[in-house]
Amino acid sequence: MNIIQSVRWSDDGSSVRIIDQRLLPEHLVECELRSLDDVVNAIGNLAVRGAPAIGIAGAMGLVAVLVPNAGEDRDELITRARDVAAIIRKTRPTAVNLPWALDRLLDRAACTDGNGEAIIAAMRAEASSILEEDRAMCRRIGEHGAALLRDGARVLTHCNAGALATGGIGTALASIYVAAERGQRVEVFVDESRPLLQGSRLTAWELQRAGISVTILTDGMAASLMREQNIDLCIVGADRIAANGDVANKIGTYSLAIAARYHDVPFIVAAPTSTLDPATATGSEIVIEQRAGHEVTRWGAKQTAPDGVCVYNPAFDVTPADLVSAIVTDRGVCRPPYRFT
Amino acid sequence: MNIIQSVRWSDDGSSVRIIDQRLLPEHLVECELRSLDDVVNAIGNLAVRGAPAIGIAGAMGLVAVLVPNAGEDRDELITRARDVAAIIRKTRPTAVNLPWALDRLLDRAACTDGNGEAIIAAMRAEASSILEEDRAMCRRIGEHGAALLRDGARVLTHCNAGALATGGIGTALASIYVAAERGQRVEVFVDESRPLLQGSRLTAWELQRAGISVTILTDGMAASLMREQNIDLCIVGADRIAANGDVANKIGTYSLAIAARYHDVPFIVAAPTSTLDPATATGSEIVIEQRAGHEVTRWGAKQTAPDGVCVYNPAFDVTPADLVSAIVTDRGVCRPPYRFT
Repeated sequence: MNIIQSVRWSDDGSSVRIIDQRLLPEHLVECELRSLDDVVNAIGNLAVRGAPAIGIAGAMGLVAVLVPNAGEDRDELITRARDVAAIIRKTRPTAVNLPWALDRLLDRAACTDGNGEAIIAAMRAEASSILEEDRAMCRRIGEHGAALLRDGARVLTHCNAGALATGGIGTALASIYVAAERGQRVEVFVDESRPLLQGSRLTAWELQRAGISVTILTDGMAASLMREQNIDLCIVGADRIAANGDVANKIGTYSLAIAARYHDVPFIVAAPTSTLDPATATGSEIVIEQRAGHEVTRWGAKQTAPDGVCVYNPAFDVTPADLVSAIVTDRGVCRPPYRFT
Repeated sequence: MNIIQSVRWSDDGSSVRIIDQRLLPEHLVECELRSLDDVVNAIGNLAVRGAPAIGIAGAMGLVAVLVPNAGEDRDELITRARDVAAIIRKTRPTAVNLPWALDRLLDRAACTDGNGEAIIAAMRAEASSILEEDRAMCRRIGEHGAALLRDGARVLTHCNAGALATGGIGTALASIYVAAERGQRVEVFVDESRPLLQGSRLTAWELQRAGISVTILTDGMAASLMREQNIDLCIVGADRIAANGDVANKIGTYSLAIAARYHDVPFIVAAPTSTLDPATATGSEIVIEQRAGHEVTRWGAKQTAPDGVCVYNPAFDVTPADLVSAIVTDRGVCRPPYRFT
C-alpha cells in the first residue's frame, strides 16, 4: 500500500526531506531541509503541518543544521544546538510537539559523552526514535480503530488526520489504512474542510494515492450525505482532548458530530495518548485560536467577500463528550463516560 | 436604505439593466440587455440568478428584444415573440419562474388588439406588473418576518435569498431589511455557502451596501457560532416547499437546521406563496439536482482536489418539516404542523 511518508532522512542522512504540503494536490514536491532557514521556513510557512509531523521535522531539522559543525568540541556543539533549537521552537509556538521533540534532543545531547560527532550521532538517534515511536503509535491507533470498521464500511472524515500530518499512517486515517491492508473494503468521504481545504487538498490526495476510494464534499453537504448515502461512521482526529472527553479539533468537527447524532451515525475520535490532556477538565477551558479573516475572504488572488466585511474564523471547535461515541488511542478504544487522568 | 435593485428598465425603457452577479463582490457592473444574445447569455451564464430575478429578467428581456420590431404588424410580432420566448425559456430549464413569466407576456400579447407597437406596450406593462408584484410580495414577506425579530436580533442566514435573487428586497433578507427600516438593530451572520459562495459574495455584499452589520463564516463554523455567539434565529429562503412543510433549499440548509435544533435556535424559512408546492406531498419526492464536480475541485484556475477524485455535489438539500419552526410567506406566518393545499 502506497502510503505517503511526509518526513524522512535524506539517503545519506545529512538532511531532512519533507513533502511540501502547500503545493498539494497539484504538485508532489519534496523539499530538502539543510540550513536553519530551510527548517524555519518549512515549519513557519506550513510546508509541513500537523502537530506530530511538525515535531518530527523540527527535531530532524535540528540535527541536519548541526551536521556541518560535527568538528566542533562537545560544549561548543551543545551550546550551538541550544541556540538553533531556540530559533526552531519559535516558528509555531502553539504546537506542543515541537518544543517536546526539541527538548528530547537537547536532553539526549546533554547526557552524551564524546566529541561533536558523538553528540550529533546521539541526537540523530533520538530524532529517529521520535519518528519511529510516532510511526508505531499511528500503527497501534490504526489497529484498534480498524476493528470498528465492517467490510465495505462507508466512512466520513474531516480535515487531514492522515500520513501527511504524522510520521506514520496518521490517526483518523490509520484505521482506514489498516483495514484496507487487511483486505477490507472501505469507502471514504471527506469534507473539504474550509477555509484551508485540508480535506480535499490533502486527505483526498493521500487516500487516492494509496488506492482507497475517496469522495469529496463541501462541509455543508455532510448532513445530506449521512441521510442519503448510508454512512457507517464518522472518524476524525483531535488537537486536544479534555479530561471529560470534550474534543478540540479542526473547525467543522462539532457540526459534523451534531449531524452524526441526528442520523444515529457513530462519531469516533482517533488520537495518540499524548493528545489527552488531564490538566484540562472540560472543553470550556480550551482557548480557541481565531485566525485571520483573509483565509475566508480571499482565494489566492481572488476576492470572495466584500472589502471590510467582518469574519468569524476560529481554527478549532470543541465537540462535547456526549456526542463522541468512542475515543481510539494507541492504548485502545475508550467508551463513554470518559475520565482521563 | 440602499438596497440593490438587481433588474430594472433602462431610463428610456428600451432595454433591461441587470447587476452582473458573477463579478460581485469585486466589481459592481450593470449590463444592458438589448439583443436576444444578451438575454440568453445573462440568464444562461448566471449573470442574473435567483428564480424570481430570472423570471423578471426573462420577461423584461423578451420585451427589449422585440422593441426594434415595433413596426411589424400584430400577427408578425406575436409570432416573433413566441419564437424569441422559446429560446429564452430554454436557458434555465429548471427555474419555474422563467416559463411562467414568459407565458404571462405571451398570453397578454394574444389578448391585446392593435398594431405591433400596442402589443409591445401591453407586454411591457405585463413585465412591469411581474416586477411590481414581486417587489410587493417581497415587502409583505419582510413585514411578516420582521415581526419575528427582536431589537438587537442576531440572525444567521445561508446562501443569498436577498434583493439580488428577486425583483424586490428578497425573501429571507426581506425581514432583515424591513426590521432595519423600522429602526431595529439587526446583526447578520452568513455562511459563505460553498461551493458557489453566494453567502460571502452576494449576501454579505448587499447587506453591507445597505448599512447592515454582517459577518461571514464558513459553513462548518455555523454550529460553533450558535454555541458561542448567542444567535437568536436562523432564517433562510426556499426553492420548493412540499405540502407537509419539507423544504428544499440550497445545500447546507439541512445541516444548519440540525445544528439550530441542537442549540434550540428557531429555524425560519421565508418564501413566496408561489414556492409552496401542494402537488409534492413530502420532500422525498423532490428530485435533487447533482451539479458538476469542478465546482468543488477548482477555484478559478486553482485546483483544490486531486485529479479524478469523486465529488458529491448536490445543489440542494431537503430539510424535514419537523426542523422548521415557522414558514413566512407573503400571506403570513405558518407554524407546524404544516399542511399546504
